[in-house]
Amino acid sequence: MKAEILRLLKESNNYISGQQLCDDFHVSRTAVWKVMEQLKKEGYQIEAVRNKGYRLIDSPDVMSQAEIDSLMKTEWAGRHTVYYDETDSTNNRAKDAGEKGAEHGTLFVADRQIAGKGRRGRAWESPAGSSIYMTILLYPRLSPMKAPQLTLLMAIAVAEGIRQVTGLDTGIKWPNDIVRNGKKICGILTEMSTEIDYINHVVIGVGINVNQETFPQDIQNTATSLKLEMGQNVKRSELIAAIMEQFEKCYETFLQTEDLSGVKEQYNSLLVNKDQDVKVLEPGNEYEAHALGINETGELLVRLPDGQEKVIYAGEVSVRGVYGYV
Amino acid sequence: MKAEILRLLKESNNYISGQQLCDDFHVSRTAVWKVMEQLKKEGYQIEAVRNKGYRLIDSPDVMSQAEIDSLMKTEWAGRHTVYYDETDSTNNRAKDAGEKGAEHGTLFVADRQIAGKGRRGRAWESPAGSSIYMTILLYPRLSPMKAPQLTLLMAIAVAEGIRQVTGLDTGIKWPNDIVRNGKKICGILTEMSTEIDYINHVVIGVGINVNQETFPQDIQNTATSLKLEMGQNVKRSELIAAIMEQFEKCYETFLQTEDLSGVKEQYNSLLVNKDQDVKVLEPGNEYEAHALGINETGELLVRLPDGQEKVIYAGEVSVRGVYGYV
Repeated sequence: MKAEILRLLKESNNYISGQQLCDDFHVSRTAVWKVMEQLKKEGYQIEAVRNKGYRLIDSPDVMSQAEIDSLMKTEWAGRHTVYYDETDSTNNRAKDAGEKGAEHGTLFVADRQIAGKGRRGRAWESPAGSSIYMTILLYPRLSPMKAPQLTLLMAIAVAEGIRQVTGLDTGIKWPNDIVRNGKKICGILTEMSTEIDYINHVVIGVGINVNQETFPQDIQNTATSLKLEMGQNVKRSELIAAIMEQFEKCYETFLQTEDLSGVKEQYNSLLVNKDQDVKVLEPGNEYEAHALGINETGELLVRLPDGQEKVIYAGEVSVRGVYGYV
Repeated sequence: MKAEILRLLKESNNYISGQQLCDDFHVSRTAVWKVMEQLKKEGYQIEAVRNKGYRLIDSPDVMSQAEIDSLMKTEWAGRHTVYYDETDSTNNRAKDAGEKGAEHGTLFVADRQIAGKGRRGRAWESPAGSSIYMTILLYPRLSPMKAPQLTLLMAIAVAEGIRQVTGLDTGIKWPNDIVRNGKKICGILTEMSTEIDYINHVVIGVGINVNQETFPQDIQNTATSLKLEMGQNVKRSELIAAIMEQFEKCYETFLQTEDLSGVKEQYNSLLVNKDQDVKVLEPGNEYEAHALGINETGELLVRLPDGQEKVIYAGEVSVRGVYGYV
């Protein structure tokens, strides 16, 4: 009921009568009043006027089950959310739930991770109160070979979600980092459980630097946050809901062709490497090339100095700007 | 100590003195006697002769931690074993252990599975007392794209292990069923947890029909057991140890080139499809071809009626004999 009342308050520009809420939810005046008191305690500014009702004046950067649920506009992506003030890692929560057959699209969100994971088992710093750590659980009926493409869908969704909520333009560093002015705002970690030719489940984890003002010394030159880029706080729950909305849209487009042809233009328009000189770092081999953009299956097309075109596979090689990281 | 004493009894053709065992393990005569009594209860026939010592006359088909451990001759594959009288599925046990970072090569064995798994989440009938259900946990530092090849290594190991212990010749139906006279003796289910370009862990599950005398009606025409083929019981623990020995050898060979070139000939010599006409069942397409054997990466090479050669990927297509399943 709390999430539903919150949703009604947010969607209404006017007062909502207490009696109306009582009727809608079949509860007493006191029950409605108690919900309003709880919301106020969490930081929501709610005005109560006799004979008019309740009105939401302002929402803080609240991360809670009710806040996220009240904002979610999707059919399935994040429609069911599991929120933790603290957990080991949202990817771990999602993988466990995937083993147990939890609903497709379930989203696991944490305010803090005590064992946050980056790629290849590396740690991902996950302090409380300023970041988004979230992981969506999917059961795509695809060949495991196509699963890497889902990561690129999430990259689009994050960049578009950030733009939708904040107006800020960010870019994608191929394949799936979100950057601004050459500094990283978001990392994406996709993991999956598969048989040889069958996906049991995929989890796509997203870590976004939202309201941080400082970073640990070892990453302070390579990381940034939305707040540092914009000079103001961003409401994390709104951003989560917007990203889920964008992701659902991208995913539905993807399913029509089971490749990226429907979102390729969108991805390439966000791609910071596009039309840039890059260094391709193959294991034991390093060469310069000109990046042209991704193809339908998410590989990066580059033009070599001799004019030949070549396809670069994510994971097999790294790409960086000729003069430092893009 | 029990597994070690059992190993000594098995390795010795002569009597082992009780005093010697006391000295070796720093325990009392009574402690040694108790171990012998336990072993007798489990079905081992042990002779005790005054002034000579103990001698193992016969071992039954015992499945237990001590029995398996006493037989294992490997460096790492199955060197650490976890035995269950009953569990949900050994693949699940191995995956859980993989998430927690259990040792490379740990082998999970069950006498009975209550939620045995076949491919694509299908059930795998797993009654007690007659089958082998086992899963090995691996952390190969390979591209996930190479992981399917590990399944073929296990297929070789099972066929060679069966031959080593029983003398029975079985064949491999590409890619990884073990068959005899067109009927299935063993299925292999490989699952893995990966990032896009990194394997967290791989589990290879093996289900072998050993001493069954009957099968459920729906599979009685397509399944067989070692006992049905040979007319006598097979000791499961010995077979487990032999398969691990073979697997370790195959895996070490594989690692030298990170492909199947070192075991390709061995695989093809076991392949029942080799030099046979097969039906290739692509989704939405079906055609006849002549199977030539696998290549270095485990794909099946076939010759089409027009003489062209083609590579068939496991999982993407099925292959069967022109006149029914091979």
